[in-house]
Amino acid sequence: MDTHDLTRKLNTKNSSKIVLLVADGLGGLPHEVGGQTELEAANTPNLDALATRGVQGLSHPVLPGISPGSGPGHLGLFGYDPLKYQIGRGALEATGIGFELQDGDVAIRCNFCTLDADGNITDRRAGRIATELSAPLAQSLRQIQIAGIEIFVEPVKEHRFVVVLRGPGLGGNVLDTDPQATGVPPLDPVATDPASEKTVEVAKQFLVQAREILKHEEHANFHTMRGFAAKPKLPTFAEVYGLRAAAVAVYPMYKGLARLVGMDIIGNASNLDEQATVVKENWDKYDFFFVHFKYTDSTGEDGDFEAKKQRTEDFDAFIPQILELNPDVVIVTGDHSTPSFLSNHSWHPVPTLLASDCCRYDQQTAFNESTCLSGGLGQFEAKHLMTLALANAGRLGKYGA
Amino acid sequence: MDTHDLTRKLNTKNSSKIVLLVADGLGGLPHEVGGQTELEAANTPNLDALATRGVQGLSHPVLPGISPGSGPGHLGLFGYDPLKYQIGRGALEATGIGFELQDGDVAIRCNFCTLDADGNITDRRAGRIATELSAPLAQSLRQIQIAGIEIFVEPVKEHRFVVVLRGPGLGGNVLDTDPQATGVPPLDPVATDPASEKTVEVAKQFLVQAREILKHEEHANFHTMRGFAAKPKLPTFAEVYGLRAAAVAVYPMYKGLARLVGMDIIGNASNLDEQATVVKENWDKYDFFFVHFKYTDSTGEDGDFEAKKQRTEDFDAFIPQILELNPDVVIVTGDHSTPSFLSNHSWHPVPTLLASDCCRYDQQTAFNESTCLSGGLGQFEAKHLMTLALANAGRLGKYGA
Repeated sequence: MDTHDLTRKLNTKNSSKIVLLVADGLGGLPHEVGGQTELEAANTPNLDALATRGVQGLSHPVLPGISPGSGPGHLGLFGYDPLKYQIGRGALEATGIGFELQDGDVAIRCNFCTLDADGNITDRRAGRIATELSAPLAQSLRQIQIAGIEIFVEPVKEHRFVVVLRGPGLGGNVLDTDPQATGVPPLDPVATDPASEKTVEVAKQFLVQAREILKHEEHANFHTMRGFAAKPKLPTFAEVYGLRAAAVAVYPMYKGLARLVGMDIIGNASNLDEQATVVKENWDKYDFFFVHFKYTDSTGEDGDFEAKKQRTEDFDAFIPQILELNPDVVIVTGDHSTPSFLSNHSWHPVPTLLASDCCRYDQQTAFNESTCLSGGLGQFEAKHLMTLALANAGRLGKYGA
Repeated sequence: MDTHDLTRKLNTKNSSKIVLLVADGLGGLPHEVGGQTELEAANTPNLDALATRGVQGLSHPVLPGISPGSGPGHLGLFGYDPLKYQIGRGALEATGIGFELQDGDVAIRCNFCTLDADGNITDRRAGRIATELSAPLAQSLRQIQIAGIEIFVEPVKEHRFVVVLRGPGLGGNVLDTDPQATGVPPLDPVATDPASEKTVEVAKQFLVQAREILKHEEHANFHTMRGFAAKPKLPTFAEVYGLRAAAVAVYPMYKGLARLVGMDIIGNASNLDEQATVVKENWDKYDFFFVHFKYTDSTGEDGDFEAKKQRTEDFDAFIPQILELNPDVVIVTGDHSTPSFLSNHSWHPVPTLLASDCCRYDQQTAFNESTCLSGGLGQFEAKHLMTLALANAGRLGKYGA
């Protein structure tokens, strides 16, 4: 019996509201022994007040020592075991550019490359060709036609683009055509299960036509195919939690991840104030709101301690607009840590705060990595967060008599 | 390899004594921010003294956010993964009234109901008929005879009674006959596996005879059958831990749960003092004693903070009688939290204290939710408690060389 078997079975409906506020990459590191993290250095009066009436702890996105990407990081927060549910690279790439995958679609990350006269690869990324040059090339591949298959070609950035195949009987388990070396020809696509044989046939036809279309192009005369992936089968929030769930995000990746678990993508906000307005305007229509804030991550990835601290303060200043709505359960967390000291996602557990009328208050009066270490939630796997949210919202019945 | 594979393999016999003291529903909640829980408010000098020479922590009965019933709560404490081992509703109901299920028995929860002239249900619970009226009706069903099957009919309370079928080849996987609606007839029982086909035939014969017996009754002229369940297959304490185990409980439910894992039910105590006497009198005959105290749960369920606090103090006052016996390992815990604030079982982790000569003392000098948060056991799943008990009793050898 897994957690979703439990949440399905114990699901209880009521009129409670849950808000999950994700400050991407929230956790950090001090830059020297005895120093403060970004969150400790930031002035966060609203988070500290919320901590006083909440319970906090540190969540491990996957397992101790594992640094997650955005996909597994968010799946964990949404209560989906990130080791059980995996989003293939192609599907994540399509999701990241806002492409709405349908059931049965297979998405493929493609790299433009260059071939010599013998058909051997000379540059696996076509010299990281500029987007202005690569986007029209990708668009030129839209003329490819294959009987019975709908084909989407979407430029991404530099040498990268995405191909999505839509049609009956396509499996996603196909090996990359990128040989990971130069001086050799691209590989043929190879299925690793019988259900993906048709995908291989389609991919081969695509490659034949693409080679013809691109053959005289100066900057990139072919492309490889990598990370073939079917749309992942994720049960929806409605099905596993009985929640009408909405996502209020600015960036396509986070809208896409939310869409994969069946959330409605609402509003068209471009900043926190607009996100708060979208939540307010839709308050009566949903039980659960996922609000995503990107810049605690991007400033961490830039290695900019001061900027991350500033963005954390911006996030703090936004909190009261959500609390005004009197949600029954508010959670503040991140999908992983992004310490500016490392300029990268990291494995460090993530400060997590939950406030409700029936949480077991833990005497903490601030919210940061140090206070979370003494918090009532202890250290836990992020995948348990949704169960805690539902319990605090009175949305889970008793297990067994 | 699961925990019981380990405990079987590493099992070491000695003369140590382990006492597990379960204050049902022990954990609580403050009723306002900054307030105290019932256990924090109670004056518990004996528990505090024990804490000084013990190690404490918070146990999750099932998983974070999951509120267990008594069945899964106790299975966890007994070291049986409550997600792996499940006690069907019928078996738990029989257990709760003290019925001794045997291997192969199938237990069924039954509800008296009323039918109209067309055989449609008019009240699924026969107006919650008074026990004084329903008990004789249940007893009248004892005249039912089915070839090759021994039948037990036991009144429970109001509209509820239990039927136990005993005979060869009975499986417990049968759907309820309660249609969960009025204005329609009861459903026929349906087997969900071939091993339960015979149970369906027996149940149908039972229902035909019951209909005849009850047809002229004013208050309840029929009954439904729900929660069919075979006696759960649980390995015994003797087999998995090498322990001669005894239970000293007042209420049938807890005696029954202990019996399911092979404990002897000893004495006939009706309060803590008598329970202490039973433990004393049987001290030499057993390695392990499970002592159950109900009233920290029932007062919590009543939503009565003061009464729960008082009952906690009663429990504290009983501790010295156990300590006088010099057990090698004493554990104090609950099967779940029952905060008076919620008047219900909850998901909050449970204060747990273990004292032995070789525990790693953790500097705590009191025992409550807050001190447990800083305790040496940290937060852990309750199913690990028995392994800790055995280790502290010197009853587990080394794993691997």
